[in-house]
Amino acid sequence: MTLTGISKLEHIMTKNNSLVCVGLDSDMYKLPPVVLNEKHPQFVFNKAIVDSTYPYVCAFKPNIAFYEARGARGIEELAMTMDYITSTYPDIFTICDAKRADIGNTNKGYVEFIFDRLKFDAITLHPYLGREALAPFLERKDKVSIILCKTSNPGSHEFQDMKIEEDPLYLRVAHNISTQWNMNNNCMLVIGATYPHEMSAVRERVGDMPFLVPGIGAQGGDLNAVMKAGLNNKKMGMIINSSREIIFGSSDIQFAEAAGQKASKLRAVINLFRR
Amino acid sequence: MTLTGISKLEHIMTKNNSLVCVGLDSDMYKLPPVVLNEKHPQFVFNKAIVDSTYPYVCAFKPNIAFYEARGARGIEELAMTMDYITSTYPDIFTICDAKRADIGNTNKGYVEFIFDRLKFDAITLHPYLGREALAPFLERKDKVSIILCKTSNPGSHEFQDMKIEEDPLYLRVAHNISTQWNMNNNCMLVIGATYPHEMSAVRERVGDMPFLVPGIGAQGGDLNAVMKAGLNNKKMGMIINSSREIIFGSSDIQFAEAAGQKASKLRAVINLFRR
Repeated sequence: MTLTGISKLEHIMTKNNSLVCVGLDSDMYKLPPVVLNEKHPQFVFNKAIVDSTYPYVCAFKPNIAFYEARGARGIEELAMTMDYITSTYPDIFTICDAKRADIGNTNKGYVEFIFDRLKFDAITLHPYLGREALAPFLERKDKVSIILCKTSNPGSHEFQDMKIEEDPLYLRVAHNISTQWNMNNNCMLVIGATYPHEMSAVRERVGDMPFLVPGIGAQGGDLNAVMKAGLNNKKMGMIINSSREIIFGSSDIQFAEAAGQKASKLRAVINLFRR
Repeated sequence: MTLTGISKLEHIMTKNNSLVCVGLDSDMYKLPPVVLNEKHPQFVFNKAIVDSTYPYVCAFKPNIAFYEARGARGIEELAMTMDYITSTYPDIFTICDAKRADIGNTNKGYVEFIFDRLKFDAITLHPYLGREALAPFLERKDKVSIILCKTSNPGSHEFQDMKIEEDPLYLRVAHNISTQWNMNNNCMLVIGATYPHEMSAVRERVGDMPFLVPGIGAQGGDLNAVMKAGLNNKKMGMIINSSREIIFGSSDIQFAEAAGQKASKLRAVINLFRR
């Protein structure tokens, strides 16, 4: 039986003993010179990074903005990347960091492309339109909807921390998702590593629901605080993403080996907190 | 001098005497049979619709989901559509209904693709991450950021109507955008035609800021109520979108003529309220 959804995620977390996610934010302006003469530079880069980091991670997460920036060519290379990953490493969990959300049926275009053509296991979504609008994602029992809750950026307080009676908005979002959106046990939340206090508050509300955690490394999130705040009762419950620090750790010809070492090291540091 | 931003919008509203926007939601499953054998069906369809409706409208608004559904091919046809529109009708206002929003620099991929490569005048955005995250859009003085405020879908109340002290969230969003985000006079708000009462409340808060108004026609918004709620002091202030009702008004070989008639009629009905 092929695992899907959160079962697939937990399986690879256990198999590779890792909570690490590599963000394939393969910005054309930052790729190592050695791949720039390739016909498909983003694909060639991604393939090398995936091969070198797979043993140390649970997930890969391309942010689609870095592909869409190149128009049809970038989208094609994202598709090539996903073809490679799903055929070579079918047990890895894949997240399309697309931050989508439209009304009702319009979402079917995204569902079709991201879940069915590209074969991602999960997508990131904005909560603002409410559950009813996002039904085309939520109804997919085999796929995971990862909803923005408390984002890692310095200005995330503007609306997310507004108080609704006693609760900040991000806690209301977490509450509704865990009590009303998660009927198929296929929801996760995005909680930035830069807000461990808020992460604790969310963990208290939502039980074992897994988090996608961006913001360690370049954005300055404190891994120690994050690990205390976010682990669930299974000592899992977090996909901890690192993008630039891993994939652009070296720009020389050995960029892929360097990425593998960085991923391996991050896994080891994280696992110290899981004993 | 080439007009940009909201000046460009107001110019074409005056020139074509219209608040109508045609939503180029060119869903492959709904295209008339006559274009399906074309090499570029979405482009051929769009070109015919644009040619027949241009005299009666102020804007065109493709929802990118219907193109992304086809992957690189759809993105290519969206690019062809925009090439055609911007070269043939350079004075029309163009909106990319993308509902994007990522953190800081990641948005640069979207800015590059949607504003600079495709040459859209405007993009729709989610507010949840706050102003700081959306700076790459807001800093573009020549382009318009259209932020989701009160969306047309039946479930939009879930978060948008949550009360922050006396105000529902959507009014706080409107307030912050008009007082803090709009320094370059390049912001607009999305307010669904299905919520005329809420539209009045927003109009009261934000002065003459223009709204993008989806939800008449198929979604059931009441045009009479919308016109009373949304017009600003210039008897403009609204881009009123119609998608399916115009572009799929007929599926026979004369689909484009039918669309032109529908657009012309909608313009006339709307203009009755602007005297």
